[in-house]
Amino acid sequence: MAPIPNGRYLFAEVPSGYPVPGKTTVYDASQTIELDSVPLNGGFLLKTLVLSVDPYLRGRMRDVSEPSYAPAFELGQPLTNFGIGVVLRSENVAVKTGDHLYGFFPFEQYTIQHQANFFTVIRNAENLPWSVYLGAAGMPGQTAYTGWREHADAKKGEMAFITTGAGAVGSMVVQLAKRDGLKVIASAGSDDKVQFMKEIGADVVFNYKTTNTLEVLKREGPIDIYWDNVGGEALEAALETARPKARFIECGMITGYNTTSHPIRNMMNVVAKEIKMSGILVTSLLPKYMEAFLAEIPPLITKGEFKYREDITKGLEHTGEAILAVQKGTNIGKSVILVADK
Amino acid sequence: MAPIPNGRYLFAEVPSGYPVPGKTTVYDASQTIELDSVPLNGGFLLKTLVLSVDPYLRGRMRDVSEPSYAPAFELGQPLTNFGIGVVLRSENVAVKTGDHLYGFFPFEQYTIQHQANFFTVIRNAENLPWSVYLGAAGMPGQTAYTGWREHADAKKGEMAFITTGAGAVGSMVVQLAKRDGLKVIASAGSDDKVQFMKEIGADVVFNYKTTNTLEVLKREGPIDIYWDNVGGEALEAALETARPKARFIECGMITGYNTTSHPIRNMMNVVAKEIKMSGILVTSLLPKYMEAFLAEIPPLITKGEFKYREDITKGLEHTGEAILAVQKGTNIGKSVILVADK
Repeated sequence: MAPIPNGRYLFAEVPSGYPVPGKTTVYDASQTIELDSVPLNGGFLLKTLVLSVDPYLRGRMRDVSEPSYAPAFELGQPLTNFGIGVVLRSENVAVKTGDHLYGFFPFEQYTIQHQANFFTVIRNAENLPWSVYLGAAGMPGQTAYTGWREHADAKKGEMAFITTGAGAVGSMVVQLAKRDGLKVIASAGSDDKVQFMKEIGADVVFNYKTTNTLEVLKREGPIDIYWDNVGGEALEAALETARPKARFIECGMITGYNTTSHPIRNMMNVVAKEIKMSGILVTSLLPKYMEAFLAEIPPLITKGEFKYREDITKGLEHTGEAILAVQKGTNIGKSVILVADK
Repeated sequence: MAPIPNGRYLFAEVPSGYPVPGKTTVYDASQTIELDSVPLNGGFLLKTLVLSVDPYLRGRMRDVSEPSYAPAFELGQPLTNFGIGVVLRSENVAVKTGDHLYGFFPFEQYTIQHQANFFTVIRNAENLPWSVYLGAAGMPGQTAYTGWREHADAKKGEMAFITTGAGAVGSMVVQLAKRDGLKVIASAGSDDKVQFMKEIGADVVFNYKTTNTLEVLKREGPIDIYWDNVGGEALEAALETARPKARFIECGMITGYNTTSHPIRNMMNVVAKEIKMSGILVTSLLPKYMEAFLAEIPPLITKGEFKYREDITKGLEHTGEAILAVQKGTNIGKSVILVADK
């Protein structure tokens, strides 16, 4: 069989503000691959189907010398993130042709991998689109589930405030909170997102760009639980309007990823209200909850009891635009790159 | 018996910055009392011996309309705080003449009280000075003990950073951390205090006014536990140099009590390092730990295994100066007003 193109999406330059498609990251079509004859050297050949685009990727676009919780991208090399691919050939006994593998993928159309234990076979008994395993049934859903179960200490009738409530993580948190019998205040950055938050059951919804967060919380609060995906002014407003012994689940602070974050001036509320603030990383919490998550959430998604939205970008070459949209919050639902249909 | 003066120390004005003795608070010698004939109406007459002066009193010097965890002082009325007095007369069967009572006292030389259950009889089997029950064996010691036991999750060999390490709370935390086998970095605002922190066992001590906190923590850290009594820049430095899964015990933020606090610009560390930050109020934690505290700490103080220092101000009329010293940090050790010797 003749060589075919193997497109890749590369990290090209450390950005200073928002990442610029074509500059920070570039598509490279120079490589080819012969699928039936490329040497595997004991590994396995995957065809990439879907790749995840997440807010935390911005933190990886840094100089390798700066330490942080997720590894920096390497200049000139493909981006990497969670993805799903199908096995075309395998020289590893643990991996079978036709298996669908979930794991950390380089952003390339075809990839040769060697570590079978870095990947999980997805059986997909529910017959969900593969992309769902990158969203509601994948890392964002797991982030919501594990963070909520570990730290929310939710009691029926309490009040939760959830930022980016229409996002991949936030929308799952909204639905977990409603299932636990809480009243939910949720914010997002567009009227369309506000509408979606209403559809998934949030009681009080607002567009933080046109409505002042602090005013809403003063009117509808006080709050018992704050799910923070944004930091900055929303965090300040939550501190201001928290009830004594409130729980703050610190999942992300996207307002500070691309620009200087609004500093927090009212931390004294943590003392005065005995607030418990917990930073979460899904990788740490997952071992404790993975089994419960898989038993509980994918079936509920299949039954339609957990709703989700996806923002699917077709074609690896458009990855840069999808990344920027997630950083600016213009995507609607979980952002996924559809690299190939099957 | 003739009437004798009953001096009082009153809240006179809400301060805008540091409280000003004679302006924010004033001594009032206009009242008298007849000790053997004043009607008790079923209550009991106490002679005030010692009164506590604590950092949190600044927060009570506010307009009554602003809610907070500790009640606002009432204009024209005596300040109130923890104190110890001896019962001179009693018409309440639960209270005996000669008993020493610990509880919330108005700042006056003699006081008639009615609620026996608001006070605790101190037997003082250890024969410690009464003032110790306002410091190492009292509320500050209990704050240190309960906060540490509830939230430190200390493991031998870990690194703790403690601010105001020569203070009433901080010096107890230093000693609790050392007993748990930790390495302790401690900061204070004078060379004399630094010397005291060394004496009680802190491994790395420094004067934050002459040495940069962040530089010390970068050199000696990373830190596993941060005991925060100050907020502001020290909190930022601790976030910057915390180890993953660090515990932050938020006990106070005195840098923001009298002036605008330095805002916190690096909260993202809470997420990235999965930091657990817990605000503490001793009143909430005490029921769970009071018995253990009384069994463990006063005997250790008697044996000299827990060291403490006191800054005793003689005479109720000098209360204002003592309050200001505590806000400015110029006191050395637990600040106490000695109202009467016995």
